[in-house]
Amino acid sequence: MSEDNYMMNIPHVGRLQAGKLNLITDVKGVSVGHVTISNGAVQTGVTVVNPHDGNVFCNKVPAAATVLNGFGKSIGLVQVGELGVLETPIALTNTFSVSAVAQAQIKQAIALNPQIGREWSTVNPLVFECNDGYLNDIQSMSVSEQHYQQACEAVSGNFAQGSVGAGRGMSCFELKGGIGSASRIAILKDGRRFTVGALVLSNFGRLPTMTLAGKYLGSILSERIQMLAEEEEKGSIIMLLATDAPLDSRQLRRLSLRAGVGLSRTGAFFGNGSGDISLAFSTAYTLPQDVERPMPAIAFLHDALIDPLFQAAAESIEQSIINSLFYAETVTGRSQHRRVALSQLAPDIQQLLK
Amino acid sequence: MSEDNYMMNIPHVGRLQAGKLNLITDVKGVSVGHVTISNGAVQTGVTVVNPHDGNVFCNKVPAAATVLNGFGKSIGLVQVGELGVLETPIALTNTFSVSAVAQAQIKQAIALNPQIGREWSTVNPLVFECNDGYLNDIQSMSVSEQHYQQACEAVSGNFAQGSVGAGRGMSCFELKGGIGSASRIAILKDGRRFTVGALVLSNFGRLPTMTLAGKYLGSILSERIQMLAEEEEKGSIIMLLATDAPLDSRQLRRLSLRAGVGLSRTGAFFGNGSGDISLAFSTAYTLPQDVERPMPAIAFLHDALIDPLFQAAAESIEQSIINSLFYAETVTGRSQHRRVALSQLAPDIQQLLK
Amino acid sequence: MSEDNYMMNIPHVGRLQAGKLNLITDVKGVSVGHVTISNGAVQTGVTVVNPHDGNVFCNKVPAAATVLNGFGKSIGLVQVGELGVLETPIALTNTFSVSAVAQAQIKQAIALNPQIGREWSTVNPLVFECNDGYLNDIQSMSVSEQHYQQACEAVSGNFAQGSVGAGRGMSCFELKGGIGSASRIAILKDGRRFTVGALVLSNFGRLPTMTLAGKYLGSILSERIQMLAEEEEKGSIIMLLATDAPLDSRQLRRLSLRAGVGLSRTGAFFGNGSGDISLAFSTAYTLPQDVERPMPAIAFLHDALIDPLFQAAAESIEQSIINSLFYAETVTGRSQHRRVALSQLAPDIQQLLK
Amino acid sequence: MSEDNYMMNIPHVGRLQAGKLNLITDVKGVSVGHVTISNGAVQTGVTVVNPHDGNVFCNKVPAAATVLNGFGKSIGLVQVGELGVLETPIALTNTFSVSAVAQAQIKQAIALNPQIGREWSTVNPLVFECNDGYLNDIQSMSVSEQHYQQACEAVSGNFAQGSVGAGRGMSCFELKGGIGSASRIAILKDGRRFTVGALVLSNFGRLPTMTLAGKYLGSILSERIQMLAEEEEKGSIIMLLATDAPLDSRQLRRLSLRAGVGLSRTGAFFGNGSGDISLAFSTAYTLPQDVERPMPAIAFLHDALIDPLFQAAAESIEQSIINSLFYAETVTGRSQHRRVALSQLAPDIQQLLK
Repeated sequence: MSEDNYMMNIPHVGRLQAGKLNLITDVKGVSVGHVTISNGAVQTGVTVVNPHDGNVFCNKVPAAATVLNGFGKSIGLVQVGELGVLETPIALTNTFSVSAVAQAQIKQAIALNPQIGREWSTVNPLVFECNDGYLNDIQSMSVSEQHYQQACEAVSGNFAQGSVGAGRGMSCFELKGGIGSASRIAILKDGRRFTVGALVLSNFGRLPTMTLAGKYLGSILSERIQMLAEEEEKGSIIMLLATDAPLDSRQLRRLSLRAGVGLSRTGAFFGNGSGDISLAFSTAYTLPQDVERPMPAIAFLHDALIDPLFQAAAESIEQSIINSLFYAETVTGRSQHRRVALSQLAPDIQQLLK
Repeated sequence: MSEDNYMMNIPHVGRLQAGKLNLITDVKGVSVGHVTISNGAVQTGVTVVNPHDGNVFCNKVPAAATVLNGFGKSIGLVQVGELGVLETPIALTNTFSVSAVAQAQIKQAIALNPQIGREWSTVNPLVFECNDGYLNDIQSMSVSEQHYQQACEAVSGNFAQGSVGAGRGMSCFELKGGIGSASRIAILKDGRRFTVGALVLSNFGRLPTMTLAGKYLGSILSERIQMLAEEEEKGSIIMLLATDAPLDSRQLRRLSLRAGVGLSRTGAFFGNGSGDISLAFSTAYTLPQDVERPMPAIAFLHDALIDPLFQAAAESIEQSIINSLFYAETVTGRSQHRRVALSQLAPDIQQLLK
Repeated sequence: MSEDNYMMNIPHVGRLQAGKLNLITDVKGVSVGHVTISNGAVQTGVTVVNPHDGNVFCNKVPAAATVLNGFGKSIGLVQVGELGVLETPIALTNTFSVSAVAQAQIKQAIALNPQIGREWSTVNPLVFECNDGYLNDIQSMSVSEQHYQQACEAVSGNFAQGSVGAGRGMSCFELKGGIGSASRIAILKDGRRFTVGALVLSNFGRLPTMTLAGKYLGSILSERIQMLAEEEEKGSIIMLLATDAPLDSRQLRRLSLRAGVGLSRTGAFFGNGSGDISLAFSTAYTLPQDVERPMPAIAFLHDALIDPLFQAAAESIEQSIINSLFYAETVTGRSQHRRVALSQLAPDIQQLLK
Repeated sequence: MSEDNYMMNIPHVGRLQAGKLNLITDVKGVSVGHVTISNGAVQTGVTVVNPHDGNVFCNKVPAAATVLNGFGKSIGLVQVGELGVLETPIALTNTFSVSAVAQAQIKQAIALNPQIGREWSTVNPLVFECNDGYLNDIQSMSVSEQHYQQACEAVSGNFAQGSVGAGRGMSCFELKGGIGSASRIAILKDGRRFTVGALVLSNFGRLPTMTLAGKYLGSILSERIQMLAEEEEKGSIIMLLATDAPLDSRQLRRLSLRAGVGLSRTGAFFGNGSGDISLAFSTAYTLPQDVERPMPAIAFLHDALIDPLFQAAAESIEQSIINSLFYAETVTGRSQHRRVALSQLAPDIQQLLK
């Protein structure tokens, strides 16, 4: 457990140990940056996950995704599926800001690589979204291209969780959700140790189904809050996984599917209106854009050794969702809509979890 | 909760009510039959799930599948994926008996429909398997074509769970697993009620990760048993879902994915060596083989109403896995290998679950 | 053959008859509009295919797609895959204008349906692209949201082909490509007649591999033109199929795959750098956004009757590609790059095709 | 062109050169064996493609498949899709003999590796099929496990094409089809040369749609033969691709899709009742079963160099289909059904192709 989680009494789920910070940035090279926009009816933002410090277009990152429920408007997955790489930082934002952020990614890539779209092929933007329309005036489309740039400039190894960045306006189990992150150490049968880091943008779920560290708290907490009339799920969750293990895109797709395991354990069932998407990438190697540069010779992980990584993926995603709830603070936004923080609704959470 | 489950003190998971029998056969028309082979080193069998009483080849059943982890040797999924129907009863058996059972399905279909392979196209057998090689001398290939026929003849609305049929030699969380079944009633926003029934063949998982009704019992129970050295997952789970809701094959694929939600909640993470496959079918209508018969005009369920069915799928699968553990009895088989029943290992299970 | 094609001596491929106009708009209700931007280094545009005249968000259109080669940056396919419908007009443009057009689609949908993103869920934009960067200064991002709106206003049943709309800057087999359309009448075994219409945005292929109506013209024509040094494919083709046959999304996915058959016959092999994507939709029925409106009761086509539709899809796509070449005119654009029209390079094309 | 093809005046399709034998065995290490069963109403067989001479279970072969049309009963694709390897020789046979051959594969693997199903996990059989029920009494299930073994023993670098092995009873374009093979040399931009070899089991198509080397011969030849009443496609084609290029399973999936390009060029459109499946494998490296053996460090091909391999796949598949027609001899089988050889129906084929 990280020091922060320990001090905040956040339960540690699963059987594996967390990395040093219990953040996705425990995977070396990964950094995260936020821009938070909080202004009355506008409660939204951008979060960027950068897989490495270099030029991501020139040094592409092996990646693969799983669409658990495709009620979502992400951009970039077609090409990730075909080529097995990502070539920009990963951006998270609200549904109606995908275009602005994708445009910013294209411009950033062109600025760094003026050959794009001319001598070279075009760049594939990669933007994920959830719908923060309950708290945020999403129709105002308040996220601009500059916000993406600022989030890129803000990346670091340590970063805030909860109601920040793209998570500013997000709701989870009808409480305040948003950004959560965690990590787990996987020890293989052959003794090698790898880190799996996770970051989620949580915006899904009805409160009665919430399960926290195995406890069915949903029904108890539902009595404490004036519930909205039963309505369909209109949320989503984006789940990112990073690892330093040498996996190819086929193995990364397998890893990304295990995000659904962690998600399921929180009480989710991938509701119809929820865009539940996960993406996994490896930092163990990069692949060159330039066909004249040599391809790296990689000894990939034997599939028979991969189980601890699968377990780490499941546990770090579940932990990230829990963290997004524990770190979130209450936010009031559009039309005086309000999402209460778990910490505020359940100051007795330690008792409830016993 | 069904009367049986109630009398056995089996915990009821989830928020939805069970159907009358808490079995897949609560979905009207569905029947299940077993043949159990138990003879020293041979501990195996066949289980058949029949979607309706009629000629399944002539009146095909809408269906779709999800492969959560494809370390499996099932037969028939290519055509189910293309055409969205099944055209034989569904058969479950051990890995090395898939061929014998598939052959029996072909012969049964030809006996009923002599035009198959001649005037008509061929029939698509549908056989799922798990590897019961720990308890069963799987290399002996003791399942014959007759066993499939007998299982078909044995189908009924009430049927045994646990160490029976295809479940005879199966292991789950290093305890005795096998056949489990359950059902849930889904009440839609528009007031309609549908039943979702589940049946699993459970053969997966390492004991330390076992979660029962939200309780992390794995570590406690691991101390009571002489564990095998840590090894990779070599199990599997087959998860079948039936519903009387009018879903098309796209929606059934969505439903089948939610089986993974229930599986995840038991502590599974879809290990590398586990063939984790689910298939969902609807009994609301059938589709004719004969192109000259009229196609039924179906008003399918609006996707925005589907969430209670998703929840029912998740809950009935989790319950089925729990039931497979509670109903199983201890079995000793090949090389004196032995899998202890949960009820024997944990007579105090009610205490542990509190 | 349509009157136009006949007058232009364009060869008719395949064995099925064309519809009245030999255009995608032979499928009743479908309309197409272009905005063409031609100004020195800027040679690009937008093309819109509208599946029906009504409110597409409220009356969704059954649809499915096939990604033959995913080197592409389209937006919207994740949700089409999950829900099996499209809910906006389909837009085509250049790679770097996807975001602007998607944003325009969102705003258009909100203007018509102010509940979107608030009481209702969000709208799924659907924009396809090819890279016209050889002729067009794609980095200038000259397509604005207004252009999409204008293309929508320009829709009609008759429309121009060739170097127009999104096709303005596109290249095909290193000649001038762009927009092409065609249709075929499928007569089923049971006597029913349905129309399959196609529209392509052609931007793929190296000249030496070009096959026209079965003739290997590539090598002959290559001698007439100063070829660029051999380089990788950086093109793409978007292939749209419309039909009035009552197909569900599973069947529409099957239909969309047959677009690849027509494409293959022109000499394409789905090159690495080519985004080769097809989407098929049916106008036989619509599905309501509003959950309180009744779902239509549809008797779908028996799969055993579908072959003439598959053949029609293959033939109408091949014809559309041929039409895009025959109708195109020579365009000079960015850096004085120039793509010659087939009609200019091969005034003797009738001879060559004999 | 190979000497044989040259002497038989078989047209060479495409722009790339054939390998030495113009057979799949031009890919070093690959061997092929047939068992042909021809006895009155029984006209069937088994063909085996062995990817290398060693123990395929212990030294697994990277592989991936594409299901173009899933009206098929193949066994083994679920696991190939998950793990990206094959672990037995590839077997081809008739639809109702899949089970017998799969069983033979399991027994062969156990004989070589007695740990299978016990200490080790189970083996994944890989059997493809077409329905030869027109010429062959398929209900007699005349293929036994011994036949698979014999085909394995018969493997060599040179092998017969046409009405042999699994191709004995197959029909193609209502003429006699069966086994065809070819190869092409792909020269990459960086100067490296790789071989792509193909082998098909052809059993698809209606004569009127047949296209041979670009010529629409179907309608001409249809006049020479007493056609059966128009009926739906009940055929299939299995298409295997081998290459010595260092491709991973993602790239092999891409390669396998290009088999559909070659198939399309012969006039096929992947009819509803046709099981059209392709599988590609690489001989550039193997992957160990034993987790304690080191994984090979592979520098995979840069995707930007892959186009010549795609072209070679398309061309070698088209050539293989043509070869299966040219090499086939007339066969009379069940109920005096008869399929005429192309060479018999069209002794003037050279004229027709001009």
